Amino acid sequence: EEVSKLLQLKAQIGGDEGKHVFVLKTPKGTRDYNPKQMAIREKVFNTIISCFKRHGAETIDTPVFELKETLTGKYGEDSKLIYDLKDQGGELLSLRYDLTVPFARYLAMNKITNIKRYHIAKVYRRDNPAMTRGRYREFYQCDFDIAGQYDPMIPDAECLRIVHEILSELELGDFRIKVNDRRILDGMFAACGVPDDKFRTICSSVDKLDKMPWEEVKNEIVKEKGLPEEVADQIGEYVRMQAGGMELAEQLLQDPKLSKSKAAVAGLTDIKLLFSYLQLFKVTDKVVFDLSLARGLDYYTGVIYEAILTQAGVAPIPAPQEANGSTGDDGPVSVGSVAGGGRYDGLVGMFDPKGRKVPCVGVSIGIERIFSIMEQKAEVSAEKVRTTETQVLVVSAQKNLLEERLKLTSELWEAGIKAEVLYKRNPKLLSQLQHCEETGIPLVAILGEQELRDGVVKLRNVASREEMDVSRADLVEEIRKRTPQS
Amino acid sequence: EEVSKLLQLKAQIGGDEGKHVFVLKTPKGTRDYNPKQMAIREKVFNTIISCFKRHGAETIDTPVFELKETLTGKYGEDSKLIYDLKDQGGELLSLRYDLTVPFARYLAMNKITNIKRYHIAKVYRRDNPAMTRGRYREFYQCDFDIAGQYDPMIPDAECLRIVHEILSELELGDFRIKVNDRRILDGMFAACGVPDDKFRTICSSVDKLDKMPWEEVKNEIVKEKGLPEEVADQIGEYVRMQAGGMELAEQLLQDPKLSKSKAAVAGLTDIKLLFSYLQLFKVTDKVVFDLSLARGLDYYTGVIYEAILTQAGVAPIPAPQEANGSTGDDGPVSVGSVAGGGRYDGLVGMFDPKGRKVPCVGVSIGIERIFSIMEQKAEVSAEKVRTTETQVLVVSAQKNLLEERLKLTSELWEAGIKAEVLYKRNPKLLSQLQHCEETGIPLVAILGEQELRDGVVKLRNVASREEMDVSRADLVEEIRKRTPQS
Repeated sequence: EEVSKLLQLKAQIGGDEGKHVFVLKTPKGTRDYNPKQMAIREKVFNTIISCFKRHGAETIDTPVFELKETLTGKYGEDSKLIYDLKDQGGELLSLRYDLTVPFARYLAMNKITNIKRYHIAKVYRRDNPAMTRGRYREFYQCDFDIAGQYDPMIPDAECLRIVHEILSELELGDFRIKVNDRRILDGMFAACGVPDDKFRTICSSVDKLDKMPWEEVKNEIVKEKGLPEEVADQIGEYVRMQAGGMELAEQLLQDPKLSKSKAAVAGLTDIKLLFSYLQLFKVTDKVVFDLSLARGLDYYTGVIYEAILTQAGVAPIPAPQEANGSTGDDGPVSVGSVAGGGRYDGLVGMFDPKGRKVPCVGVSIGIERIFSIMEQKAEVSAEKVRTTETQVLVVSAQKNLLEERLKLTSELWEAGIKAEVLYKRNPKLLSQLQHCEETGIPLVAILGEQELRDGVVKLRNVASREEMDVSRADLVEEIRKRTPQS
Repeated sequence: EEVSKLLQLKAQIGGDEGKHVFVLKTPKGTRDYNPKQMAIREKVFNTIISCFKRHGAETIDTPVFELKETLTGKYGEDSKLIYDLKDQGGELLSLRYDLTVPFARYLAMNKITNIKRYHIAKVYRRDNPAMTRGRYREFYQCDFDIAGQYDPMIPDAECLRIVHEILSELELGDFRIKVNDRRILDGMFAACGVPDDKFRTICSSVDKLDKMPWEEVKNEIVKEKGLPEEVADQIGEYVRMQAGGMELAEQLLQDPKLSKSKAAVAGLTDIKLLFSYLQLFKVTDKVVFDLSLARGLDYYTGVIYEAILTQAGVAPIPAPQEANGSTGDDGPVSVGSVAGGGRYDGLVGMFDPKGRKVPCVGVSIGIERIFSIMEQKAEVSAEKVRTTETQVLVVSAQKNLLEERLKLTSELWEAGIKAEVLYKRNPKLLSQLQHCEETGIPLVAILGEQELRDGVVKLRNVASREEMDVSRADLVEEIRKRTPQS
């Protein structure tokens, strides 16, 4: 860190002849997307947006910064990761940290009581970047939420169906969606003897179970958070129960301790209802009820869920470091969460002057991790990623035909054909063909003196090298026939 | 301003029972986009992106903030409008002010010598917002640029063709594209006796000709910028010349003063060449060579252009205030620029440690103004803007059919049909039909005891109220037939 700062300073001062030299880089934790990455990103977004639209969602957008105050008190300890803008006179502003708080602000501000919306946009966190693992300071979030007073578990089930559809369509390999409920966790903590005011902090500890073994989590609960060992052990019994489905909910409803907690009973009853809907939606093959799922955020009030990829090797996330000599063999190594969400019925009320609540449930797709996986796949794959959609390059073999090339290209644009022409008066035929090879343009329209006299164009297939004369009147139709429409 | 600050303070402190109350607003100069605005925005973006892709462009993305230093010295006086981030330890950062400087930084950083790319993203300026006129502090830019060492005027002509295509396809009414060249302006200034070091500042004055009459501009040149009146008058003769085409360039090449300036001759020769390509591209009906066009930015080195809508009434921009009692009848009132750009051959070199130049030409579409116009049009139009694409709502007339509704909806999703279902156990038929009316869903799939027994679904056309029984096996096909594919 110190060295890099010095090097940076040197670069700034340095340069030959005392000339000021720019530090040519993007800010720490950020990156440019090159055309290839953008092509992959567009494909992923299209899949996700199609799914959101299939489920009848609208979309909104909010500013990249909010009044600082809007974000205050929403993120607990993580508030220190918020980017503030410099006070240049006027309002104090901060870059958005997620899309959920702006969404809640939007609902309260516009007095909207029901909406089904998606929002895809960048958010900002002054976190320690780990760019090889897909963790950046500027990154996309991709949220779908349903706000409104509805009958229990119906919108919640649709959110899970959406996660199932997206992960299946993106072909990221096998996945599992863990489900739990904050009320069950709270009931469980109460039953185990955790004091009320420690629910959230113990929740944070349990949340680490996907990254560290139980022994370490227990250690944290006892040593750092000061609970008696017996309490921790009781929690441990629950959170290490084999994940299951409706039967596990049924079984826990019979549990002597849990059945005494109103919250736990309400949560377990809803989990059962949720699974009955998930059966109708045909997604129970991937969904498990898992008592160890806790989720970090404070604002969840009901169902919570998280999707993980279960096939090692597809994800760019290496196994977590085995710190403290632990063996960490509590099940297969998680390759990281690719979606998560839950119900948050209280957040909008925090913004409403009269505290009116708007129940919400939503899901956030871990799009950056998905990008990383898709990029990796593209690199391994033999298929070349095209960064343009050009159908045909208009070329000439002879000199002095620039005007004819421009005229034909213009005709093709007029007809909606994606066409390019090299910006040279007399480019070599070879360099024109090379441009096609490099960028994947499938067709070449060749103009020559002879073709112009005959009123034809020679249409060449770049891959097969086949050529045929096409009358100018039929050219558009022939190009359409030979290239995929999009 | 002062009052609004006080009111804000009051709202922050105030509230009943000493409770802290949030100020429910977006930051000054910013706005949320609601679903209707987003639907319009999506339509406009699709038109523009299709055009960029038709011309073989790739796309890139860059971070929303850059090192402060990257932006320093690029925007002249406007640098004061840059948003800085707070120094929270680490690098000093600023929000991007446009997309051109990040593009140049990207090219230099990655040593890219040729690329044709578009970039659509938000930029930030701490300007005085005029939101009714579509001027915000956070707004979209929509840039297309061609970088590379090519033969003169070919890429430049394509940029103009792109502006022509986009403005035509968006059906914003009639428009005109003014063209000029920085070298002609410089040659003209030299010929009129402007000292070299005042070229840029006189350029800024001339740039105001679309907002104020010549007399005021002259006043500025003489009184504020201190040039002799005769010099100003000579400039005035040129900039008030009737705009024209190739003939005007021809005529000016014969001008005794201009023909002595190497820069002017180079510029005029290129304008002639440009017009010959524009003729091949069939866009000369809208393009005029206009000596009064100057453009504000410092970095232009060659051709510059700007598109304006010429039909009053379509644009949300009122006529400029007639300050100082001027009559301002120097031609029709401009309804504002909707696209602009030009050639900037030196900018990339500013970032390259060795000063290597990459010639660039590009155009920026004034997308916010276009949004405003489209929104206005949508409001006037009888046609309702749909914010979702849902094809069918699955409903039941009787009670206790939630499970059947969910099952059918799930089947439709499986088949790629955009389908919704209300999140209620027993919604009234009327409220289900109302949801269709409100959101424009064209079809209703009705389930009842009878239909379930018969293995059919009653498909209802919301507009015509026609109903027909469709066998479950044929339902997907029937829905597809009856709804537009997208």
